[in-house]
Amino acid sequence: MISKVVFHMSKDAGRILASNTPQKIDEEVLVQGWVQARRDHGKLIFIDLRDRSGLLQVVFNPRVSEDAHKIATELRPEYAVSIKGKINKRPDHMVNAKIASGTVELEALKVEVLAKAETLPFDMGGETLNLELPTLLDHRSLTLRHESVNKIFKVQAAIAEEFRNAAKELQCTEIFIPTISAGATEGGADVFVVDYYGHKAYMTQSPQLYKQIMVSVLERVFVITKAYRAEPSMTTRHLSEVTMMDIEMAYIQSFEELLDALEFVGRSMIKGVIEKHSDILERLGVEKPLIPTKIPRLKMRDAQKIVTERTGRDLSNELDLNPEDEREICEWAKEEHKSDFVTVTHYPTKKRAFYTYPDPGDPTYSLSYDLLFKGSEILSGARRINDYDQLVTAMKNKDVNPDNFGMYMQAFKYGMPPEGGFSFGLERLTMKLLELANVREASLFPRDMERIDERFSVTETKIKPTQQEA
Amino acid sequence: MISKVVFHMSKDAGRILASNTPQKIDEEVLVQGWVQARRDHGKLIFIDLRDRSGLLQVVFNPRVSEDAHKIATELRPEYAVSIKGKINKRPDHMVNAKIASGTVELEALKVEVLAKAETLPFDMGGETLNLELPTLLDHRSLTLRHESVNKIFKVQAAIAEEFRNAAKELQCTEIFIPTISAGATEGGADVFVVDYYGHKAYMTQSPQLYKQIMVSVLERVFVITKAYRAEPSMTTRHLSEVTMMDIEMAYIQSFEELLDALEFVGRSMIKGVIEKHSDILERLGVEKPLIPTKIPRLKMRDAQKIVTERTGRDLSNELDLNPEDEREICEWAKEEHKSDFVTVTHYPTKKRAFYTYPDPGDPTYSLSYDLLFKGSEILSGARRINDYDQLVTAMKNKDVNPDNFGMYMQAFKYGMPPEGGFSFGLERLTMKLLELANVREASLFPRDMERIDERFSVTETKIKPTQQEA
Repeated sequence: MISKVVFHMSKDAGRILASNTPQKIDEEVLVQGWVQARRDHGKLIFIDLRDRSGLLQVVFNPRVSEDAHKIATELRPEYAVSIKGKINKRPDHMVNAKIASGTVELEALKVEVLAKAETLPFDMGGETLNLELPTLLDHRSLTLRHESVNKIFKVQAAIAEEFRNAAKELQCTEIFIPTISAGATEGGADVFVVDYYGHKAYMTQSPQLYKQIMVSVLERVFVITKAYRAEPSMTTRHLSEVTMMDIEMAYIQSFEELLDALEFVGRSMIKGVIEKHSDILERLGVEKPLIPTKIPRLKMRDAQKIVTERTGRDLSNELDLNPEDEREICEWAKEEHKSDFVTVTHYPTKKRAFYTYPDPGDPTYSLSYDLLFKGSEILSGARRINDYDQLVTAMKNKDVNPDNFGMYMQAFKYGMPPEGGFSFGLERLTMKLLELANVREASLFPRDMERIDERFSVTETKIKPTQQEA
Repeated sequence: MISKVVFHMSKDAGRILASNTPQKIDEEVLVQGWVQARRDHGKLIFIDLRDRSGLLQVVFNPRVSEDAHKIATELRPEYAVSIKGKINKRPDHMVNAKIASGTVELEALKVEVLAKAETLPFDMGGETLNLELPTLLDHRSLTLRHESVNKIFKVQAAIAEEFRNAAKELQCTEIFIPTISAGATEGGADVFVVDYYGHKAYMTQSPQLYKQIMVSVLERVFVITKAYRAEPSMTTRHLSEVTMMDIEMAYIQSFEELLDALEFVGRSMIKGVIEKHSDILERLGVEKPLIPTKIPRLKMRDAQKIVTERTGRDLSNELDLNPEDEREICEWAKEEHKSDFVTVTHYPTKKRAFYTYPDPGDPTYSLSYDLLFKGSEILSGARRINDYDQLVTAMKNKDVNPDNFGMYMQAFKYGMPPEGGFSFGLERLTMKLLELANVREASLFPRDMERIDERFSVTETKIKPTQQEA
């Protein structure tokens, strides 16, 4: 716990925030922020000042301060300014209910430009920012300032915080694990290669192996970390660098205990976020998710049958749910269970990673699960194989060489208890919750095959892919 | 907030933890964990069972359960077991005050082996684990299980949590930023190169540039993220992959506001951790840090004078404090101010990164600072240059090409307010707080030039360093 007593500094050293101005009527205050808009009404100049708390109307009257008014004529959008002035109550008919400071305005006495801004390449003054995605991303440092964009990341921060709260409820310890690895996590080809002091190394595709090792130490762990996906994919769901929120728990008593845990985390996270930020969801026009007391659970085969019943499509030869099926089963859950969540279990063993525990009753299927939310998967996980010999066999069946996983195998040599876990993608979850069209909108600085901040130009020097073998 | 009402599952589904057994005298319970040690006393077999809460003594008496006793004869260290039994109060003279469950023991009725363990390569039963660092790391998945090792990471988790708490007190928003970058953060050569879809990219050396961009959006931000350091260094202070805990704040009113903020975070973090884990500090034999009400602040030149006075060493031509100086100035702070912290400011502008704000009163020195703790630096930071033109000039003076920092420069084109921030290294801080000899002990799976989990063998295939130009 932080002792507030020891914290003697004033939090903004004299400055007050826009949202606090209604408590300062008739007082002289200092505010600082960006010029969101300027309106000249005859001799009066109005600006909307934006700080981290919201907007404040400032009026420059030459009869109050000629100097301040003169500077105000030169203010342009995104100038950073410092303004001293007096807070006046607005007449009732002038109250702006849309902003927290709408009952007052600041009468400027003194203004100082802290930093100028170039002319904006497009209008940022509207309620929405109608830009194509490439333009939005080309000007990311600027477009993030628009409320409709940066609110996404206020929600994202809340998701991460609620995830940690839920993980702590489950008595998980936070761990910090490496992202540079000697082997590809799941033996796949879609990994980024890094030149590690002349050795070939890889950026990890997931925190999977390390969180499993760590349950043999701490029993229950959580981690928020980066994962790297080198698939040459340009879909609306793909990012090359993502943030994973993972939990892993040992000494589980049953498969149902894992399902209880993941549903607890999923629902309490979403519930926490919408309680904290219902205003943002409203502002972004997002429908409030339906969170039932009990999330419906289905085996994948039963989910397929429901899809078939509802659509007539024959899925009997399908080994997985495709995106269309996921949307359909979510529609079903919404209609039948008033739930935006649905848990699907028992995916085919051959469709899951080598460490997935086959169902002892029918090893064709596995003790795996996805949590679907608003039409698509936001979480994936499983009980894991914990027996060393069984793991070696499973690896060999998937053409994975145990010798490339030395530190991982070591954990299984010395008593790995029954365990399992799950993983959320932070950007994917943000996208689903806020009903964004593209996952790139849910990443501050998205990485994909065409862009690292700036788009790669066609003339850009390319390095040759590394040819050596691992 | 998480609603506890909705969480119907029993947290361990019937299993109880070792630390809760004293509340269950004469009851039948289920416990699970690892065999820490087995002692055969005539017909009785004792084991120390270890779970995430601590140790529990279990006694196997053949007259109580012949089956359980028989299995117990085969138990070896690190077997994962599940035991049903009855909790008995120990006679007063048998109480073990060293463990939380020391007033009771479990009389085993039924035992199940959940996972076997190979014979350990060394004894793990002692209070300390007397292994050389390479051995400790070669067997990391195993050695982490030893209490003297994994307690380090309980403390590390608490440091991160207290950092976030302090950052939230400062009204910072958490951000998630990329680690793959198009340019080297500070223009240095010691960066890891990644093959990014055939383009040359870099692993970021710090979150610096993105956190600065983000204060032009959210004003106050914090981030916990990875940073990558490719220096070919094998010192006890160097890791190739580290965890950074960063804060950045815009609209600062003064340099002192930044110093107040960093000292607030530093002291409340350490204070929080030692309050929460005083038992671990005691267990690891660590002296409790001295945290004064007011941390002493010194300009670097004044710190050098004090070192000269105390040691006779002439530092008048030195542009920085070397490790020996840092130790000496920490000794001074301890003696004169009863403080394990000391803040040193105004390092020479030429020794700091391009974005550092020169002191307007004397631009040879900069508005920079380090926080020293127990003999060395745990935090570094500065006020930053916020004017676009001044930044371009500063970059050119340091041979940094602004064209390689497009997204960063963009933020400065549109009104970057006065701002500054600071950065802690999580592993470094863990090492200092717990007085560890080597920073590798403070990283779960340390990365250095000789090792990714396993040591590189001499015959290992090396890839050629990329030869192309960026």
